[in-house]
Amino acid sequence: FYAPVPEVLYIYFKCYASSLPLGDDSICTAEELAKYSIIFTGKWSQTAFPKQYPLYRPPAQWSSMLGVTHSSDYSMWKKNEYASNGVRDFAEKGEAWVLMKEIEEAGEKIQSVHGIFSAPAISSGTGQTSTELQVHSRHPLVSFVVRIVPSPDWFVGIDSLNLCEGDHWMEEISVDLYPYDAGTDSGFTFSSPNFATIPQDTVTEITCSSPSHPANSFYYPKLKILPPIAQVTMVKLKKNQLGFPIPHLNQPVSDWPCDILNSVISVHSKNMWNSGR
Amino acid sequence: FYAPVPEVLYIYFKCYASSLPLGDDSICTAEELAKYSIIFTGKWSQTAFPKQYPLYRPPAQWSSMLGVTHSSDYSMWKKNEYASNGVRDFAEKGEAWVLMKEIEEAGEKIQSVHGIFSAPAISSGTGQTSTELQVHSRHPLVSFVVRIVPSPDWFVGIDSLNLCEGDHWMEEISVDLYPYDAGTDSGFTFSSPNFATIPQDTVTEITCSSPSHPANSFYYPKLKILPPIAQVTMVKLKKNQLGFPIPHLNQPVSDWPCDILNSVISVHSKNMWNSGR
Repeated sequence: FYAPVPEVLYIYFKCYASSLPLGDDSICTAEELAKYSIIFTGKWSQTAFPKQYPLYRPPAQWSSMLGVTHSSDYSMWKKNEYASNGVRDFAEKGEAWVLMKEIEEAGEKIQSVHGIFSAPAISSGTGQTSTELQVHSRHPLVSFVVRIVPSPDWFVGIDSLNLCEGDHWMEEISVDLYPYDAGTDSGFTFSSPNFATIPQDTVTEITCSSPSHPANSFYYPKLKILPPIAQVTMVKLKKNQLGFPIPHLNQPVSDWPCDILNSVISVHSKNMWNSGR
Repeated sequence: FYAPVPEVLYIYFKCYASSLPLGDDSICTAEELAKYSIIFTGKWSQTAFPKQYPLYRPPAQWSSMLGVTHSSDYSMWKKNEYASNGVRDFAEKGEAWVLMKEIEEAGEKIQSVHGIFSAPAISSGTGQTSTELQVHSRHPLVSFVVRIVPSPDWFVGIDSLNLCEGDHWMEEISVDLYPYDAGTDSGFTFSSPNFATIPQDTVTEITCSSPSHPANSFYYPKLKILPPIAQVTMVKLKKNQLGFPIPHLNQPVSDWPCDILNSVISVHSKNMWNSGR
């Protein structure tokens, strides 16, 4: 890399960056603890997702965020695997209790969990929410889920993103998010009535062509890929720094063009954010 | 006090324990940092609150919890004072962003804030949610709000509860919660349409007789006081202990009798919880 600062490193994954473990669990020799601000930005606008966009009872919105920092011995959810009862309850109804108990048990039994975090719900499709999280050198992975409301059992999230890079913690990372189906409710559209999937299916990504059925709310046969429906940014905090809303991120959300790559992970220097994107 | 352990200290306030600052801001000489688990329990059942109980679109539920640990230089909300724009947005719509920015600004400008915390929403009137919080000897006060959904601008919460008792941190505290009106929307019932209160009114407690109008959803002329609509419990954690759901608190919620005192604050020894209440 000979790029001048601010440098940008785009890492391209093909269609599944937001579900695959983004980093491995190799030895982390960074400082023991690191604190991050995590900012979730909804990009679920009627412009970007015109089909069946929910306007009433309820209008498009996002549930609370429920997340966890952990080691590779724990997994909150994983593409192509079955959702836990906790993830099912959360994805279908936004009920967090069972998932919180699952996380707690993993923390007690196999010490695979460092902490839990939560951010307030967002009452529109395009708002922002934020909270703090703490990672540990033996628990450097971050996972979370946010339910798409209304929807049968759809969510966005991150599975096991490693914030440790060998001997240091990442300064800042931003990940585009795409919708997932928890595999527990067979509804096709945002406002489908409950209809349990029996037997339960695995967690699958919803794309503009899959499920391949014109009734599906995300079925856009003319698109190559969906625009990101949300984005999450994690920024490393200095000790004692408060980790909530970062003013320069609080900008009107512009709709991304629909023909960008499905998954872009950007690692920025701090200056990058101020120079506009 | 000659009571044997487990000892219980009931402190009776008349009608406003959940809004008055529960402790003063006298010097705290306890250990610098303390971590608590905070468990919020909804008690908004159709049995306890039969009048106009919301069953559909949406059914009775609770928003995310948004809270802060702070010094006496900050106040999130206060009975008989005007709600901030952030509290108004949160109480009316569950939108947390402005309130989070207000908290952040107080933290930056006058260092009156130690941390923010949030717990997931509850999708029924009687569920539970939980998270962790950290207090600091210079920021020993806890405040939070949880919106009553659906409602015009009603919420429950705690204003400036002091977790420090001189040279030590409280082991456990439980507070009954009663509904408040943020003073920004003039709706009388859970599902009233939006109707801004101009000029804005102050934050007031809603009781079984106030507002004194038969149309009010909490107007129960035969009751002396409302049963608590929610309860919050904070339990001090050991270092490195995970602070989410505490199994022995995860019991079916029984309805409290309607004739108990309006506000009961119980300070328990740890054993008290296991002996049943």
